[in-house]
Amino acid sequence: MHSDSQPAQWLADFHDALVARDKGRLQGLFLEDCYWRDFLAFTWNIVTLEGRGPIWDMLSERLDEVSPEKWRMESADISGDAVGAWFSFETAVGRGKGHLRLKDGRCWTLFTALRELKGHEEKRGPTRIAGAQHGVVKGRRVWLDGRNDDKAELGVSRQPYCLIVGGGQSGLALAARLKQLGVSTLIVDALPRPGDGWRRRYRSLCLHDPVWYDHMPYLPFPDNWPIYTPKDKMGDWLEAYASIMELDIWNATRCTHAAFDDASKRWTVEVERDGQTFTLQPAQLVLATGMAGVANRPVLKGQDRFRGIQHHSSEHKDGAAYAGKTCVIIGANNSAHDIAADLWENGASVTMIQRSPTLVVKSSALQRYGRPLYSEAAVAAGIDSDRADLIAASIPYRILPQFAKPTVARIRQDDADFYAQLGATGFMLTFGEDESGIGLMYPRRGAGYYIDVGASQLIIDGQIAVKSGVEIDHLTENAVVMADGTTLPADLIVYATGYGPMNDWAAQLISPAVAEQVGPCWGLGSDTAKDPGPWEGELRNMWKPTRQEALWFQGGNLQQARHFSLYTALQIKARMEGVPTPVYHAT
Amino acid sequence: MHSDSQPAQWLADFHDALVARDKGRLQGLFLEDCYWRDFLAFTWNIVTLEGRGPIWDMLSERLDEVSPEKWRMESADISGDAVGAWFSFETAVGRGKGHLRLKDGRCWTLFTALRELKGHEEKRGPTRIAGAQHGVVKGRRVWLDGRNDDKAELGVSRQPYCLIVGGGQSGLALAARLKQLGVSTLIVDALPRPGDGWRRRYRSLCLHDPVWYDHMPYLPFPDNWPIYTPKDKMGDWLEAYASIMELDIWNATRCTHAAFDDASKRWTVEVERDGQTFTLQPAQLVLATGMAGVANRPVLKGQDRFRGIQHHSSEHKDGAAYAGKTCVIIGANNSAHDIAADLWENGASVTMIQRSPTLVVKSSALQRYGRPLYSEAAVAAGIDSDRADLIAASIPYRILPQFAKPTVARIRQDDADFYAQLGATGFMLTFGEDESGIGLMYPRRGAGYYIDVGASQLIIDGQIAVKSGVEIDHLTENAVVMADGTTLPADLIVYATGYGPMNDWAAQLISPAVAEQVGPCWGLGSDTAKDPGPWEGELRNMWKPTRQEALWFQGGNLQQARHFSLYTALQIKARMEGVPTPVYHAT
Repeated sequence: MHSDSQPAQWLADFHDALVARDKGRLQGLFLEDCYWRDFLAFTWNIVTLEGRGPIWDMLSERLDEVSPEKWRMESADISGDAVGAWFSFETAVGRGKGHLRLKDGRCWTLFTALRELKGHEEKRGPTRIAGAQHGVVKGRRVWLDGRNDDKAELGVSRQPYCLIVGGGQSGLALAARLKQLGVSTLIVDALPRPGDGWRRRYRSLCLHDPVWYDHMPYLPFPDNWPIYTPKDKMGDWLEAYASIMELDIWNATRCTHAAFDDASKRWTVEVERDGQTFTLQPAQLVLATGMAGVANRPVLKGQDRFRGIQHHSSEHKDGAAYAGKTCVIIGANNSAHDIAADLWENGASVTMIQRSPTLVVKSSALQRYGRPLYSEAAVAAGIDSDRADLIAASIPYRILPQFAKPTVARIRQDDADFYAQLGATGFMLTFGEDESGIGLMYPRRGAGYYIDVGASQLIIDGQIAVKSGVEIDHLTENAVVMADGTTLPADLIVYATGYGPMNDWAAQLISPAVAEQVGPCWGLGSDTAKDPGPWEGELRNMWKPTRQEALWFQGGNLQQARHFSLYTALQIKARMEGVPTPVYHAT
Repeated sequence: MHSDSQPAQWLADFHDALVARDKGRLQGLFLEDCYWRDFLAFTWNIVTLEGRGPIWDMLSERLDEVSPEKWRMESADISGDAVGAWFSFETAVGRGKGHLRLKDGRCWTLFTALRELKGHEEKRGPTRIAGAQHGVVKGRRVWLDGRNDDKAELGVSRQPYCLIVGGGQSGLALAARLKQLGVSTLIVDALPRPGDGWRRRYRSLCLHDPVWYDHMPYLPFPDNWPIYTPKDKMGDWLEAYASIMELDIWNATRCTHAAFDDASKRWTVEVERDGQTFTLQPAQLVLATGMAGVANRPVLKGQDRFRGIQHHSSEHKDGAAYAGKTCVIIGANNSAHDIAADLWENGASVTMIQRSPTLVVKSSALQRYGRPLYSEAAVAAGIDSDRADLIAASIPYRILPQFAKPTVARIRQDDADFYAQLGATGFMLTFGEDESGIGLMYPRRGAGYYIDVGASQLIIDGQIAVKSGVEIDHLTENAVVMADGTTLPADLIVYATGYGPMNDWAAQLISPAVAEQVGPCWGLGSDTAKDPGPWEGELRNMWKPTRQEALWFQGGNLQQARHFSLYTALQIKARMEGVPTPVYHAT
């Protein structure tokens, strides 16, 4: 009873204090150490407000317009010393869901997320469309006519409201959401078929995240789906998804330039399709070109002299061609390990050059501890992916490390022998500067880790050699020469050196000036390796307004594609419908 | 308490009586008017045993081998004067689910269904496969290699265990189930792409059954799916389904002949693919060629003289070509009405020739009353399609009319004006000889009805003319002349005259002798119009062993494709694994 009545009472008090605009009472409802994470509902932004002052600043600016009401507790739970509760609420323009954590009756964390716009609800379940047009109608247009019209007209004689560049999971998920919201949307993608972004990767690739984490919006994987989806199966799934969701995609189409016209508020986007140039004029432009930017190709002395094969990991397909060859992989993160194992399986001799410490975590450990929200046990407990996404979002980034560290400690203990053996090879290990593990490394820098599915044992066993902590000096015709004088013979060099920042794409497609104005994408500003401050508290520029009007970035893994596509879609829909969307920027 | 304890006690008593092989006690547990419907669990057949005598006859023959045990009640409910309960049980070879209806403590209806074979459980949910092969393996074969092998080898250098002729919903659903059970299966289909069976039909066609009724196995429609799926969207869905389920299909492949060899226990099946003849040698042959057989084309005097266009409804595509034309449709069931409306919408003048009474029910009435198990309300009550299928199956056909008649009476009352107006045009109406409506008309004859989506109003309004109760005498060069001398001018004659019986296909592909030995498919033996006796109590030859070894018939609507594919798949899997499958035939 206690756990239920406390948050219900808090919500009632909160509502009263909001209505009264009573700063004192409001601040008294929050702990000094408090966080309010808001997805659109109050701020038309994705922000975390930290502390009573920033929370009051936001409220004093936004309350009149937001007019929040109907705060209703849905369920309560206790975890540790906090009482948690889920609730629903409404604003002037929409309906939201939220979560609350109380300590000693005061709010520690508050999470509010806009979930739908009033008057623009999705037609699902009880409100789904009829499909058939019953009754008899002269000049009837059937479903196929509409689809054929869209294919023929969209982008040609009729401009989409939204153009998405990139048809991977992020582009497809967003397009599916927009379709449901009635926003006319076109995807352009350089590859021939939906799903090719996965198909063309190296042959042993499987998703590193398990199935429960990877559902697309609306159409969950069937329950006979494997835990780790092989890349070609993922490609086929996305292709089927695009068909089922009736998405309009121009494949084999390359976007060459985009410019925003401040007067007309439309973009002018040039694309090449079938050797023909089309000029598209969408109101909104989404870069869903992957969270990675352009491939990083290190410049090395002697690169032009090297006579073997050298290519970036993104171009590496299949180890079969390298049986008996000597291969050097520059880099020691996921792709480096996967490619090293693939080459070894195919009978190549492999050396990995590790330039900085790698966070290694066994896939089995992640499955045991890493994502309890996304598991068969969670499904059995009634936590579907939508609920799991909200639970995950309810924890502000600032305090996420304290949730993550105990898991890291447990994994280090369980796998102590493994880490000792791997470390003994000279392989440099990290668990994150603050020991917060992969869960934080991913949002901080989107790289720097290997989810071990077997290659680490090859390193321990000396089957894959590692050269750590030494810089590359130069290449010769047939070798990599290290700064310590070591010569590593090489028939193949793979640059598993990652990717530049996502707004490389903005620089390339729009202009370096716009890319600079927008600033970096991804990263929290944690002031840890490769994630310089200042503290931002959310992923920079992702799924939220950028400093370039009508420009959006989509990217990340399948979970992010699923969850955050909802918020990007709501932001775009609101703009299309003329719903006011003043963006609040925390200072 | 009462409703729970009674069936639990009954199950315990039943178990004891079974173990004791005590005929007297067993018979005492059943009402005199009792029914036991069994799907495979006891009989390796789909049968309904009616009365204590036939039930005991079956048990005395089968009990020793079946060894039923672990009868466990799962939930109880009360409907009318019966206490219902769901239960699970096991047999020597499998696990089952069942349902029970008690009246005054004794069994009125019992339903038992085998759901899985011990040792051959499907890998789903917690037992799903890993997908990725973790660890490092020399000579690794990835998912794509396996799929490519199947595509290249199956039916060429490696014979499928099961061959399915026909890749509509029935063939695809069965193939998906068999794939999950590890039964190597090939589908051959004459049309170029999966889903073409739907795409090539007349353009206004939508499913007449609503979305909740139409889910395929494993992959339910997303909840943004329309209520009535347009035919081309259905085609695209089935094509995506085939890809997602990794089904092996030879499209554009025509099956020309099949023969069973009693010595080798294999079929020899000739198919034409890309102008090449392949000889396939499956152990099991499934005709999933649609519940309809070959198109019925009536032979009419003067047919060769007629100068207009005449074709069967299955060949009719689009009314657009007939603006301003005079069209005669022979037949007055679903296709006849849909085509009549399509022609009218396109500005043709239309007359329908009705040869026998039609069961007409408004789509809206069916949505209100017709399928409460398959509705948004059922979903909200936790009844998914699997549970709904079992509930529907728990009612034996013999007593189904008494469940159906009150609904028919309610619909007739609600729509009394509509029926009066339609009858006043001369249109001949029926509600089934025993007023049991479409729910019985469908299993009895699979035809004879129109689910009204608007054409009836056109008839009432005189926009579509109907000529009823008069035979056609002959055709002239440009008209249909009726036996009463009426001349109906015609530029187009559509024969909406239905299809021959399903075992036409067996006659055509195998031999008339085998077709005769197998006997008719479909129908209950209700001794009503077009469903002659003797009483069979189940659909003849559907989804169960036929009198031709290793020959199976699949067909029917999407609900049947979904539910009964499970039982066909289990029967085929059991035969492949050498599980004894003695088929019990009720006498």
